[in-house]
Amino acid sequence: MVAAVDVRGGGPGTRETDALDPRNLVPRIEAVVLTGGSAYGLDAASGVAGWLEDHGRGFRVGPDPAQVVPVVPAAALFDLGRGGDWRARPDAALGRAAAEAAAATGPGAPVAEGNTGAGTGAVAGGVKGGTGTASAVLPSGVTVAALAAVNAAGSFADPRTGALYGLPDAAPPDPEVHTAALRRLAEARETSRARFAASVRPPLNTTLAVVATDAVLTRAQAQKLAGTAHDGLARAVRPVHLLSDGDTVFALSTATRPLVPEETVVADPAFGVHVEAGALNDILAVGADVLTRAVVRAALTAETVDGPGGHFPSYRDLYGG
Amino acid sequence: MVAAVDVRGGGPGTRETDALDPRNLVPRIEAVVLTGGSAYGLDAASGVAGWLEDHGRGFRVGPDPAQVVPVVPAAALFDLGRGGDWRARPDAALGRAAAEAAAATGPGAPVAEGNTGAGTGAVAGGVKGGTGTASAVLPSGVTVAALAAVNAAGSFADPRTGALYGLPDAAPPDPEVHTAALRRLAEARETSRARFAASVRPPLNTTLAVVATDAVLTRAQAQKLAGTAHDGLARAVRPVHLLSDGDTVFALSTATRPLVPEETVVADPAFGVHVEAGALNDILAVGADVLTRAVVRAALTAETVDGPGGHFPSYRDLYGG
Repeated sequence: MVAAVDVRGGGPGTRETDALDPRNLVPRIEAVVLTGGSAYGLDAASGVAGWLEDHGRGFRVGPDPAQVVPVVPAAALFDLGRGGDWRARPDAALGRAAAEAAAATGPGAPVAEGNTGAGTGAVAGGVKGGTGTASAVLPSGVTVAALAAVNAAGSFADPRTGALYGLPDAAPPDPEVHTAALRRLAEARETSRARFAASVRPPLNTTLAVVATDAVLTRAQAQKLAGTAHDGLARAVRPVHLLSDGDTVFALSTATRPLVPEETVVADPAFGVHVEAGALNDILAVGADVLTRAVVRAALTAETVDGPGGHFPSYRDLYGG
Repeated sequence: MVAAVDVRGGGPGTRETDALDPRNLVPRIEAVVLTGGSAYGLDAASGVAGWLEDHGRGFRVGPDPAQVVPVVPAAALFDLGRGGDWRARPDAALGRAAAEAAAATGPGAPVAEGNTGAGTGAVAGGVKGGTGTASAVLPSGVTVAALAAVNAAGSFADPRTGALYGLPDAAPPDPEVHTAALRRLAEARETSRARFAASVRPPLNTTLAVVATDAVLTRAQAQKLAGTAHDGLARAVRPVHLLSDGDTVFALSTATRPLVPEETVVADPAFGVHVEAGALNDILAVGADVLTRAVVRAALTAETVDGPGGHFPSYRDLYGG
């Protein structure tokens, strides 16, 4: 895949992101890793790299086809201690297992959501976060999809009403339900504080996301997409991109469909740049939108965790179905 | 002022923005210029620089106090031809007049809004854009303010309902009013197309903004503020930051109030970084919010233009009060 990244949060934990700068050498990558465990969890990428090497996949660096170096960009979110064990973190073995599991899926396989993957220990504004995904198909036939692991200093729900920021058209929760939810959330925070003395206050966070398309993008165009996708995050989480977040978005292009349909007629070549710009603009706009929707999915599929690391109620538990 | 900039749009027109990189030489600036006229309009900054030189203000480069070079960062939005004359653009004389006018105001003087300054020719999604401003005072006493000249490929109102994105709590317009507004807007677009043959389709755009605070910020902290303020733009305009926008936000610190109140007691110095981060996080969050509100003010204060360059109805004309 063509890949790019835009790091917008103030406390990022990343690996191999400099290799994605469009000026740099490696043109394609084989995998991206989103992980928990803060900077420690970046070790998961080592396991993915090992699996890729075993399968001869990576950036070719020598005459023997086995001489590859897999460039595996990775980003970590902060969830240390949320399971009750400060030292429980994704490692290389977990990364290898994730690569094996991914390789075992076929095209179109459903993507797990909720308390899974990098979203396992995710929390946003005291409410359980998680992993969510959403996609859209443009009139041009181009597909744009997003996956997010939502873990934020801010919240995906308006603290005044309980309404999800990413669903502005939905009716807000009943005020009585919201009042009860705020009370339960405050109690859960107290429980978490009492239960796990080593929990981090104020919490550290980071939302991670991938936006992908089948349209052919240059690496620079992919980087633009990664940047504008952050707008979708800004609409779904508030506040966002703080110093205590390390919000990072990767953009991927599988490059199987022309950005501008081949049959497109450009009347005036001197003005033709705007045709390509328009096609990319459509992808940028919907890239932000699907990321907003992926955050909403994460909020709605996450499940309450009540364990040794704390009590993190889910949005659905607080506000219903 | 301490100053920084974050250019997030795909078609920027800027001057002296590289000087604001925190690694670079000049620590303070005297003025920022927001202008119309696309890249041509950047000439306005020359007039501001001339006025500053006449007053001995600028970056000192020699033993004589008159030996200054004023660094005047500037950004331009695209409004060429909207007044009906393709060659009507801000120039150095206009920039000098603006500097004189600004110097004649005192602290706390009201800031002009609507069809003024860089917002004079601004249009967003076919609706007249303009200049708007908003501010907030944090519990810490820190003030954060924003000024925006709103000119976007996207819209500040939801095309499905007519509701302003930046006012999610307000009741949406009556559906009949919205239907009529859509019809009037379509007619205005046709009128514009017919009236000014040299109008640019698809339109080019760019929203410009300044976010300022009295809190002491380093140049790097100011750059972080410029970046997160774009989140407020993303919440108020949709889509945003496209290739046909050159969206640019400057951040300024007048540096008259400590970021962390001096009486603050930090119990554990090793954890003290989070106290400063928390104080900055508060400014980042409200910086985005005041920029959202500044866009709303621009939308609500802009006035209909119906002239030789086209018909650009205002939001208030379309939706009432």
